[in-house]
Amino acid sequence: MMPHPDRAELERLFPCIREYQCLAEKHGINDIFQDNGGKILQVLLITGLKALPGREGNDAVDIQGNEYELKSVNILLTKSFSTHHHINPVIIAKYRKVDWIFAIYKGIEIQEIFLLTPDELEPYYEKWENKWHAEGGKDINNPKIPLKFVREVGKQLY
Amino acid sequence: MMPHPDRAELERLFPCIREYQCLAEKHGINDIFQDNGGKILQVLLITGLKALPGREGNDAVDIQGNEYELKSVNILLTKSFSTHHHINPVIIAKYRKVDWIFAIYKGIEIQEIFLLTPDELEPYYEKWENKWHAEGGKDINNPKIPLKFVREVGKQLY
Repeated sequence: MMPHPDRAELERLFPCIREYQCLAEKHGINDIFQDNGGKILQVLLITGLKALPGREGNDAVDIQGNEYELKSVNILLTKSFSTHHHINPVIIAKYRKVDWIFAIYKGIEIQEIFLLTPDELEPYYEKWENKWHAEGGKDINNPKIPLKFVREVGKQLY
Repeated sequence: MMPHPDRAELERLFPCIREYQCLAEKHGINDIFQDNGGKILQVLLITGLKALPGREGNDAVDIQGNEYELKSVNILLTKSFSTHHHINPVIIAKYRKVDWIFAIYKGIEIQEIFLLTPDELEPYYEKWENKWHAEGGKDINNPKIPLKFVREVGKQLY
């Protein structure tokens, strides 16, 4: 196997990528290249929220100690937000306790940020709960929350 | 909500992040911040392989047209490679046709790259297949391939 000539370009850019990763680590993000790490960093710095690293469940906390679930979408790829690969009443109970922050990206460029309260998200929680019971207690695989709903119902932060 | 003072640092670094994303897109990677995009770019440029974007299954191709499955691990977080969230005989049949490239990272820094052939991976395929049948045809959720096995059995490319 032979390296691609663009490898030199990557080497040129990499020192700056390292700096971005350092900044991310300072803010509790292990890896910018996984799970939208490099995007979540941007959301944290814009909103002033702090990451809750290594936590199952909610993702960020404000200076008053309120927790938030963070979600992001790349609208070049899809028009809805992923939630969780194993939704069940335990997860839904966690979700009901916090506001959600939805960050909308075009590729890696942030476009908008919305905040939705538990009340605003309740229609989804109810639907998922009903579905879970109707299917005999089978975890729901990643039900989506549409971008359209988030834009209509949420409070725009950015 | 109030922006964090480090937002200025992010703004300073972002032009270079954009260049990295452009380089990634040139090589078939939509988003450096998802699914290890920024790392896969590095593996592609080091090995000279080309991405197969939007493909279910195998991930890269060499100049002779041979396909490869690409996997990466961050050894600061875990000591084994993830495979697939729904392993079944169809997926295993795809896997049996190609060599696998395993890239080992510390954080975002590449450490080693190994190549394993279908024969070398066959013990896993057999184990997964047996398990799938034993459990009445239930997809296996992300069985792991240990780093130790990859290092012992594979051919080191980097």
